[in-house]
Amino acid sequence: MLQTRLDLDRIRASRDAIDPVFLATPLYRCDALGGQLGCTVSIKLETANPVRSFKARGTELATSRLADQGVAAVVCASAGNLGQALGWSGRRRGLDVTVAASCFAPTVKLDRIRSVGAHLELVDGDFEMARERAVTIAQQRGVRLVEDSLDIETCEGAATIGLELVSGVSAGDAVLVALGGGAMATGVGHVLKALAPGVEVVCVQPVGAPAMTLSWRERRVVTTDSTHTIADGVAGRYPIPVVLDDLLQVIDDAVLVREASIVTGMRLLLEHAGLVVEPSAALGIAAILEDPDRFAGRHVVTIICGGNVDLDAYRRWVGW
Amino acid sequence: MLQTRLDLDRIRASRDAIDPVFLATPLYRCDALGGQLGCTVSIKLETANPVRSFKARGTELATSRLADQGVAAVVCASAGNLGQALGWSGRRRGLDVTVAASCFAPTVKLDRIRSVGAHLELVDGDFEMARERAVTIAQQRGVRLVEDSLDIETCEGAATIGLELVSGVSAGDAVLVALGGGAMATGVGHVLKALAPGVEVVCVQPVGAPAMTLSWRERRVVTTDSTHTIADGVAGRYPIPVVLDDLLQVIDDAVLVREASIVTGMRLLLEHAGLVVEPSAALGIAAILEDPDRFAGRHVVTIICGGNVDLDAYRRWVGW
Repeated sequence: MLQTRLDLDRIRASRDAIDPVFLATPLYRCDALGGQLGCTVSIKLETANPVRSFKARGTELATSRLADQGVAAVVCASAGNLGQALGWSGRRRGLDVTVAASCFAPTVKLDRIRSVGAHLELVDGDFEMARERAVTIAQQRGVRLVEDSLDIETCEGAATIGLELVSGVSAGDAVLVALGGGAMATGVGHVLKALAPGVEVVCVQPVGAPAMTLSWRERRVVTTDSTHTIADGVAGRYPIPVVLDDLLQVIDDAVLVREASIVTGMRLLLEHAGLVVEPSAALGIAAILEDPDRFAGRHVVTIICGGNVDLDAYRRWVGW
Repeated sequence: MLQTRLDLDRIRASRDAIDPVFLATPLYRCDALGGQLGCTVSIKLETANPVRSFKARGTELATSRLADQGVAAVVCASAGNLGQALGWSGRRRGLDVTVAASCFAPTVKLDRIRSVGAHLELVDGDFEMARERAVTIAQQRGVRLVEDSLDIETCEGAATIGLELVSGVSAGDAVLVALGGGAMATGVGHVLKALAPGVEVVCVQPVGAPAMTLSWRERRVVTTDSTHTIADGVAGRYPIPVVLDDLLQVIDDAVLVREASIVTGMRLLLEHAGLVVEPSAALGIAAILEDPDRFAGRHVVTIICGGNVDLDAYRRWVGW
């Protein structure tokens, strides 16, 4: 019996609060990509929606509950995608949304946060500094803080991906999940362990931003002093203890991948699946590239979690 | 009362024969793209499936009915996408599939037709020559011919896109449909005229492959001697009379667009929607680019019908 903060009935019910445009996303086999990787590859595509990432599953749920409670203003820290999703969801529910973000976040993400009507507060530091700023804003202005991975709605929203995966996976399959703060990993992991326990859930993090993976391996919070990765969406340094507790129950492994593998993963997704993705969304393919024997001949599902990427940087990375 | 070859109840029922991986595709607003075009743009994405085009909706239906009839072998002519889809659908139902195609079709399309297990017969001529070859093969070998746009299943399959659009459109909106042989246009058009008659259905064809548009305008079949377009998926010269008859009832307009607009459309879809599409899938955006006043301020839905494109050519076209 899983003892995480998540609950299957609650996850199932949460779908009613989420705009259908974010649900029932494509899940399909991509043989051209699988042929390159020596295994059967299925793609769970989370980029074909108005905010181009899975994050709105969680922000739809969070803002729905906050609006029900009469909350008028919210703030979050974001590497870029959560802020855009919270802005989108909040605007539709009349919430005033403020997003604290690193000034080093991709320009396209910052622009899109503004374009959905959120107030953007730039921080001269990394994502962890933005988290501190969001806490300060919440305290000083008396607005509600939405914290990714800690607020249960962000995990429950991501967990709805797991519900959609269950019918497409079977024992022996592996699901690759990008690991950052842990909302997607705990959410998807919880559902799979509950409903399809024979499926291996493998989290993937860049070697340049390994805090949660190191924490999972040592079964205690391990922080790092800095991050060095192009995968801006998963570059945290301070894992949240209760999220780690959940993660320890629901995933089978956490692996670290090199930057070169992430780049190759992005290029393979472009050339063999026709998908332009942000670096975090290529972590799964990177994991296959780094350990082909592990996945050889198996059916591997990779969640393409986001497509918000600066195109100039993208072209440079993939060599186009 | 519409008097086409299509029937709404039959279209609704046809969904049961189609693998769900091809149904309920994403339909979402893309504000970044709309901002570039001066209107609200929604994308109906038909590329996130195993064959990367809408064509499998029709081939699923066709092969399902043929298998029920005990048919063992089929042949079709294809510009590339139908053949891939027929191969995919046929293989799953134990059908032997032969595809006649132009040797000038994009290599990626020919490769993928082979990769799904179909026999490929290359013709030293254009798509119309491939159509002739398919007829000959059917006669000589006694195998069943599946003819795009003429076989009602290809239209009914495409019409299921229309069913999925109905809930997302309202009076005054416009739906842009790539026009080739006419299966998608008659299918989607029939459903929209039946269920959402206030929605404008606009077909878009390249000025370099205008046969069906000219036919629609003159209300009689007009053929052309040649085609000159990068939009290989819609480059026919001999419209089918009964398809034209249907088209005359269900669409509001047919417009022709220039090659430069198609290329710009592809680039905008890449840069503002993160989508790598084949030229035919950019026809709708090209139509907006060529007549922005017509669509200004309106909600325009464009069907992204295929993503099978040779990447070297693509890079050259979009200037990447």
